[in-house]
Amino acid sequence: MKGNEAIAYGALKAGLNAYFAYPITPSSEIPETLAKEFRSPSYPEFKVFLQSSSELEAINMVIGAAATGAKAMTATSGPGFSLKQEGLSYAAAMELPFIVADVNRGGPGLGNLGPEQSDYFQATKGGGHGGYRNIVLAPNSVQEMASLPSLGFTLAFRYRTPVIILADAFLGQLKEDIVYPSIVEEKFDTPWATTGANGETRHVLVSLRLDFDDQSRHVEHLMKKFEEAERNDIKYETYMTDDADVIIVAFGIVSRLCKLAVNILRDKGMAVGLFRPITLSPFPSAPLAKLARSGVKRFLVVELNTGQMVYDVKLAVERNEVVEQIHRFGGLLPSANEIVKKVEMTSR
Amino acid sequence: MKGNEAIAYGALKAGLNAYFAYPITPSSEIPETLAKEFRSPSYPEFKVFLQSSSELEAINMVIGAAATGAKAMTATSGPGFSLKQEGLSYAAAMELPFIVADVNRGGPGLGNLGPEQSDYFQATKGGGHGGYRNIVLAPNSVQEMASLPSLGFTLAFRYRTPVIILADAFLGQLKEDIVYPSIVEEKFDTPWATTGANGETRHVLVSLRLDFDDQSRHVEHLMKKFEEAERNDIKYETYMTDDADVIIVAFGIVSRLCKLAVNILRDKGMAVGLFRPITLSPFPSAPLAKLARSGVKRFLVVELNTGQMVYDVKLAVERNEVVEQIHRFGGLLPSANEIVKKVEMTSR
Amino acid sequence: MKGNEAIAYGALKAGLNAYFAYPITPSSEIPETLAKEFRSPSYPEFKVFLQSSSELEAINMVIGAAATGAKAMTATSGPGFSLKQEGLSYAAAMELPFIVADVNRGGPGLGNLGPEQSDYFQATKGGGHGGYRNIVLAPNSVQEMASLPSLGFTLAFRYRTPVIILADAFLGQLKEDIVYPSIVEEKFDTPWATTGANGETRHVLVSLRLDFDDQSRHVEHLMKKFEEAERNDIKYETYMTDDADVIIVAFGIVSRLCKLAVNILRDKGMAVGLFRPITLSPFPSAPLAKLARSGVKRFLVVELNTGQMVYDVKLAVERNEVVEQIHRFGGLLPSANEIVKKVEMTSR
Amino acid sequence: MKGNEAIAYGALKAGLNAYFAYPITPSSEIPETLAKEFRSPSYPEFKVFLQSSSELEAINMVIGAAATGAKAMTATSGPGFSLKQEGLSYAAAMELPFIVADVNRGGPGLGNLGPEQSDYFQATKGGGHGGYRNIVLAPNSVQEMASLPSLGFTLAFRYRTPVIILADAFLGQLKEDIVYPSIVEEKFDTPWATTGANGETRHVLVSLRLDFDDQSRHVEHLMKKFEEAERNDIKYETYMTDDADVIIVAFGIVSRLCKLAVNILRDKGMAVGLFRPITLSPFPSAPLAKLARSGVKRFLVVELNTGQMVYDVKLAVERNEVVEQIHRFGGLLPSANEIVKKVEMTSR
Repeated sequence: MKGNEAIAYGALKAGLNAYFAYPITPSSEIPETLAKEFRSPSYPEFKVFLQSSSELEAINMVIGAAATGAKAMTATSGPGFSLKQEGLSYAAAMELPFIVADVNRGGPGLGNLGPEQSDYFQATKGGGHGGYRNIVLAPNSVQEMASLPSLGFTLAFRYRTPVIILADAFLGQLKEDIVYPSIVEEKFDTPWATTGANGETRHVLVSLRLDFDDQSRHVEHLMKKFEEAERNDIKYETYMTDDADVIIVAFGIVSRLCKLAVNILRDKGMAVGLFRPITLSPFPSAPLAKLARSGVKRFLVVELNTGQMVYDVKLAVERNEVVEQIHRFGGLLPSANEIVKKVEMTSR
Repeated sequence: MKGNEAIAYGALKAGLNAYFAYPITPSSEIPETLAKEFRSPSYPEFKVFLQSSSELEAINMVIGAAATGAKAMTATSGPGFSLKQEGLSYAAAMELPFIVADVNRGGPGLGNLGPEQSDYFQATKGGGHGGYRNIVLAPNSVQEMASLPSLGFTLAFRYRTPVIILADAFLGQLKEDIVYPSIVEEKFDTPWATTGANGETRHVLVSLRLDFDDQSRHVEHLMKKFEEAERNDIKYETYMTDDADVIIVAFGIVSRLCKLAVNILRDKGMAVGLFRPITLSPFPSAPLAKLARSGVKRFLVVELNTGQMVYDVKLAVERNEVVEQIHRFGGLLPSANEIVKKVEMTSR
Repeated sequence: MKGNEAIAYGALKAGLNAYFAYPITPSSEIPETLAKEFRSPSYPEFKVFLQSSSELEAINMVIGAAATGAKAMTATSGPGFSLKQEGLSYAAAMELPFIVADVNRGGPGLGNLGPEQSDYFQATKGGGHGGYRNIVLAPNSVQEMASLPSLGFTLAFRYRTPVIILADAFLGQLKEDIVYPSIVEEKFDTPWATTGANGETRHVLVSLRLDFDDQSRHVEHLMKKFEEAERNDIKYETYMTDDADVIIVAFGIVSRLCKLAVNILRDKGMAVGLFRPITLSPFPSAPLAKLARSGVKRFLVVELNTGQMVYDVKLAVERNEVVEQIHRFGGLLPSANEIVKKVEMTSR
Repeated sequence: MKGNEAIAYGALKAGLNAYFAYPITPSSEIPETLAKEFRSPSYPEFKVFLQSSSELEAINMVIGAAATGAKAMTATSGPGFSLKQEGLSYAAAMELPFIVADVNRGGPGLGNLGPEQSDYFQATKGGGHGGYRNIVLAPNSVQEMASLPSLGFTLAFRYRTPVIILADAFLGQLKEDIVYPSIVEEKFDTPWATTGANGETRHVLVSLRLDFDDQSRHVEHLMKKFEEAERNDIKYETYMTDDADVIIVAFGIVSRLCKLAVNILRDKGMAVGLFRPITLSPFPSAPLAKLARSGVKRFLVVELNTGQMVYDVKLAVERNEVVEQIHRFGGLLPSANEIVKKVEMTSR
């Protein structure tokens, strides 16, 4: 199964109710798969599938569906993700839970269809206006493409916030066998949803707060939620980090090459480990800082961009000079050997 | 003169050729002023003024004008800045020089019309897809609102890149006397511009590079340009930092309250200084790092957001525990007294 | 039941598969009713209900649905009907069967929400570019609002053409009891439909024919279809026309006042009848011409516009001076008494 | 000079102030020519040239410019003319004077780029909603393409109404020498224009009249204006009609083939003439009716469509059986010989 298909089925198994998107390579198999399964008796909860006439429309339809408490999702890539930023800012302000899958391609501009991780900043820091923060999940296998939508909805509804699944063109096209996790399709309480008052209290979701104190309290509330997620819901994978002198930090597809490099380096007798953030935002700074304090001598950040996560790693590590980096971009990947050599060189 | 008027006149004095925008509070006096001066004999180079029918259209019209080598500009705020992110990514890829003024209001979502600095991440890190970096200038007075467009065009044409002027709702409405700097209206060489081949070599500007190596080289080229700007063109203001134990770091309107606080604290006999980045991106990390190494004990970052520039300050300083922060948002400003107290408290 | 509800239920009973529209007064109860019945077990064939984000989108979505052989429909009024004209021209060229209900309000421009019949020319003659002709049906009761969608689909599929149901604001709001005709939900053969080739011949529907001879043959084919409909499928109602000296010609809501006037005039001993076109296009010229030849002395055309159907009546009658007219507009209706007086006056 | 260029220069000589359009074949030389002459010192009154981002935008920009009393114009073809119908209806209601040139191509749908006259109904009868009537001018030479914009503006401002110049793809591309008529550039009084109140009475132009009586009076006013134009401003050309037994009726490009046919037939000794309407709307019914009453035995209507003007001819002539027709479409033209034969045949 392809990664893009896996994310579609993962969303369906997690109880997806509504999908809206404008197709864009390299994410198009997601709507294609969902279109095929629409009205299938296997997914009776999947009630709305709609190809919108633009990226802007798609995100605003997702907002509308999410406002009713439905499990809603959209998928896109680069240019489409940019067009969705206004909507994401509104959704953050309205505290709407949904998933946006961004299958990162080469950029900026039209760029190309190669894999990249260059939307890291956009997903984790910037993107829309007004200073909200998204929860961002980064799968590194077709298996995780299938399982992260379930976690995504859980976090989206727990914190009432958009969740970004940041994949890449390689992961989207990669074919691997997967085992469906026995997902318990969660029902989330949505006492805030606009489901029709029917005589009871009317719910209204707004992104406009003209009063300065009111707006200030609201932004503080959003900040507290993010800090709570940072305390309770960061996710990361460590591999042979216990005794490591050197730790490679990588996320997504490129983390697999890094694991391979770790194995090669361990075979050579070097104490090297891998730290893989799964939640890119909130970033797992605390465990990384702990590793830094516990005697790790060097960190090597490997990214498919010009250097973005490296900022978060440096912030956690607090000594810029011990943080090295490899960056490849434009659709190119580093080889495991290249990573091995870089570690050997920086360890001298 | 209001800040929004000053930025308009500053652009005209710098030789503005073309302005396109969709009006949005609190930036609307910019197009209003330019509309009034359109066809005025004082500004014969100001040849196109156009109110577009959407924010998307405005940025794409700016792209078109800039591609001909014209000095083009647009202005917007929050939601409109988000809608322009796709265009900014394309412009970065095509290396087009122009100015976008973002008069930051309270967000996210519709938020309110109060002053904020919450678009810091969006302007300096994220925003559009594909990992480009903008040059970002932050005025802190009506005088600088008038002078930064000239610097903006200089940097935009020097590095062939969009330049963001990040102001805020307060600065836009603030009235102050200004002295026009004697701007020498620069003529920039634009051998790349698409001005009509007329029998000579045809210029084509693209944002699409399907070949991975080609795209990789191009992104590297963009990165090198940014690093060059970081070496040669960072701008910042220091105030009484020479002997300071504590340095307040602030940009834009709030830096003025910080200067006031420095004066009060100096009167009290405390060795406090102010570091004000004018280029928010590239960030003046090197001079700040130097101050950190030369014995400054504490840094206090004051921002009108939930904490964004503080990341760049910590990255420069490399000891997170010596970086304190004050953040106000939602349209609220801290008082000078509040800043004074925070410094006194953290200096114990 | 309101007329707008009746047209919605009439379409459902006729097997409506897909409805797309942007709501506009005074037609909004049509989408409201259909939204309510969407997913109701009573109408299992009603599979798509979509509120589009513009009138243009709605007509193009209808085109897409109709191209698959589905029974598709949209409803609108004045300004929205104008915005749909490009789509209608494309649909005519592609020979797509569907229904557009135009609930005529007062115009031109925004006008008002009163009843009018001023879209007669637009529906029957002009509208879109390129000289196609629509089939246009004009109900005059809530009962016909319920029954004409069934006839509409029959004619649409028989001639592969858009069918307009031209109602008005009064009919849309009028409440009357209705009896559902026992509609045999017809299945239409659609060998041309683009339902997915599945290994068989692929169907393509085009509106572009660059070759002059090809385009000429195609337009001739469209003309022949319309002439065939004129021979076989004109519909009209006559009331006491057999011995009439004077015949009132009227369609839609105002025909009911005319019938009342006929009754009053008959009571007064005058030989007056009513001719009501139900297909406004093709116009029932032949039966009207026959009446003209068989001794009728005068015709009185009563319309809620400045005089549009009167052209078709004159063309059929061939003596302009025997055709009188009453026209009311702007939301106003003539009284039965006014019609009576006009007949008495013109009969002297 | 090409017809499309001639119409552009004709508009400029008539004092064009503002042009807005979205380019569409076969009218694109019109904006191309105007773009070239924009800012030329020869046309100081030509102050705004704007390529809009859609046909809808173009017509609404024309509305905005015309509301200030400017001489505004747009040009389009088929699909674009359809998209402009909502705007035309609003403009009719607001009584705005401007020119729309429709360079008719083959239709319906995308059709092809050949010459046709199939937008006759759309321009003269239908088009937009709500029952207004346009003034429609039909040139038949490059010379008239150059002179009709001047007449167009005169009639537009005299009757405060949109004026359509209905040309075709052949006329647009035809090259002929022309002599510029010594146009006295008229200044029109526009006491209704919204030019900024400056302390005086504010003008407001509306298309919304919720009150039924108010709307009724307004529509009656529009109707009276059209009737006045019908009395005073119909234009037509007659050629050898004085003693004619047979009269050919034709407009636009095809009228030239008809004149040739008349010459051939006169050489053969037959009493044949040509009647060419220049105002298609209001239609010159009165002079045509007079000819019918004065002994003409037959009329032959020659049109590049499936038969549209023939309705207006029959209405004027009042005996359908004496009106013959030739129609060619899809980009095809009849030959002069074919017209000659048809006349010979019908004269037997």
